[in-house]
Amino acid sequence: MKLIRYGMPGREKPGLVDAHGVLRDLSGVTPHLDLPSLGLAGLQRLRRIKPESLPRVRGTPRLGVPFTGISKLVAIGLNYSDHAAESGMRVPTEPIVFMKATTCITGPNDPIELPPGSLKTDWEVELGVVIGKTAKRVSEAQALDHVAGYCVVNDVSERHWQAERGGTWDKGKGFDSFGPIGPWLVTRDEVPDPQVLSMWLDVNGASRQRGNTATMVFSVARIISYVSECMTLLPGDVIATGTPPGVGLGMKPVPQFLKVGDVVSLGIEGLGAQRQVVVPG
Amino acid sequence: MKLIRYGMPGREKPGLVDAHGVLRDLSGVTPHLDLPSLGLAGLQRLRRIKPESLPRVRGTPRLGVPFTGISKLVAIGLNYSDHAAESGMRVPTEPIVFMKATTCITGPNDPIELPPGSLKTDWEVELGVVIGKTAKRVSEAQALDHVAGYCVVNDVSERHWQAERGGTWDKGKGFDSFGPIGPWLVTRDEVPDPQVLSMWLDVNGASRQRGNTATMVFSVARIISYVSECMTLLPGDVIATGTPPGVGLGMKPVPQFLKVGDVVSLGIEGLGAQRQVVVPG
Repeated sequence: MKLIRYGMPGREKPGLVDAHGVLRDLSGVTPHLDLPSLGLAGLQRLRRIKPESLPRVRGTPRLGVPFTGISKLVAIGLNYSDHAAESGMRVPTEPIVFMKATTCITGPNDPIELPPGSLKTDWEVELGVVIGKTAKRVSEAQALDHVAGYCVVNDVSERHWQAERGGTWDKGKGFDSFGPIGPWLVTRDEVPDPQVLSMWLDVNGASRQRGNTATMVFSVARIISYVSECMTLLPGDVIATGTPPGVGLGMKPVPQFLKVGDVVSLGIEGLGAQRQVVVPG
Repeated sequence: MKLIRYGMPGREKPGLVDAHGVLRDLSGVTPHLDLPSLGLAGLQRLRRIKPESLPRVRGTPRLGVPFTGISKLVAIGLNYSDHAAESGMRVPTEPIVFMKATTCITGPNDPIELPPGSLKTDWEVELGVVIGKTAKRVSEAQALDHVAGYCVVNDVSERHWQAERGGTWDKGKGFDSFGPIGPWLVTRDEVPDPQVLSMWLDVNGASRQRGNTATMVFSVARIISYVSECMTLLPGDVIATGTPPGVGLGMKPVPQFLKVGDVVSLGIEGLGAQRQVVVPG
């Protein structure tokens, strides 16, 4: 099941994308797609609905974040060995964990707001894991049972604030609009193996990132288990699981970063695509 | 005004502490103390109530976090020069920002749950600044206008996870129960100058931390302004503004850390006191 929320910011309605790519309205079935309220059982109930029984959504509305109830947006650093290399960092021996301010979260095609004076705003296509069931110190073997589904995340990052202004990475990761999520929440049943997904990101139509979750240093199951040692994950929480090679910081001969007017497009196999225009923040 | 929430976890009622230290029930006036809903205007309305007109609260109930609606718990590192020295770190040239998982937040006297296998769980008394009005890129001069009030925060920290397991500090800062907040939300009108507050922390009755917000490296106003450059602060968000000297990591001749059965008590002038027993997590 590919869940969506469509409509203007703050007024989104629930919906889904059927097997033919048609948007269908779920308002008559559920007033919201709030994961803390729905949980895994609620998602299971939604799966029993026949998509063709739902009204079509007219036109091509804006898409919002495909669910609500994100209390934490946790992210994993340097989780692809090639990306660690291009960043001049060693492959970590255990997951690097940081947090993105939840105020950075936006719809999948909303603009990226370039912070005033930004020197190094960069892109990162990432597999987002959406928690469906409270996870506290879960084993790697049980970890995927706690997943509601998967989505595309662009872990937009201001490298100067992230790495050159003292302290932790969080400063450069949480600017407003730095967390596009969507277009879809693809439920776990449609992603039997999260470690075989190809992913891509282009800037102004030119290829930038190409990768596959097969080359993650730490698997999705390992990440969930590890993070759940440090903090309790709640339904609706999202873990962005790291980015493959091809970020602006790693470009040769000189790094390249986003500027106003640039267009970023990105996607993951089976999870849909995002497109953001860079605007002044 | 000293606002409280009292009762069992998840079932807290709103209240206040009057000038004589008597708990009064606010349920008849407002169903909740939710800062995103109340905002500064809502707090202003509550200030018009005569405390003696409110029913007394019977007994000595548990106190919860004194307000709801915390979407982010932001924290500042090494913000007292003496604490930076005892940690073997340089005084930062701009604020160090990290984030505590909101799932770590507990009432002011709830137990601290020692993570299984914890090697270095430490204490940090901190002035908590509670945002009352959305703050995005606010100037230092305007910063305090965005404050709802102040509270005590114990920024409990597992130093091994924070500093010795790779990556950012967030891993060691966000364990469940690592963010006691309260007992009171003291509204801004009662704290005309947040830079003159003495603060203390004892472990098992022995003095550990003694400090005053006068020795902060970056003032409350500067911190709000700075953080609001990186992320939009929402009503209910809390910034823990750093800790004075005397943490376990800095003890001579050998660092000391918390163990099961220890009792941590701490407080800030005018903002009340907390008391936590350390239990197995």
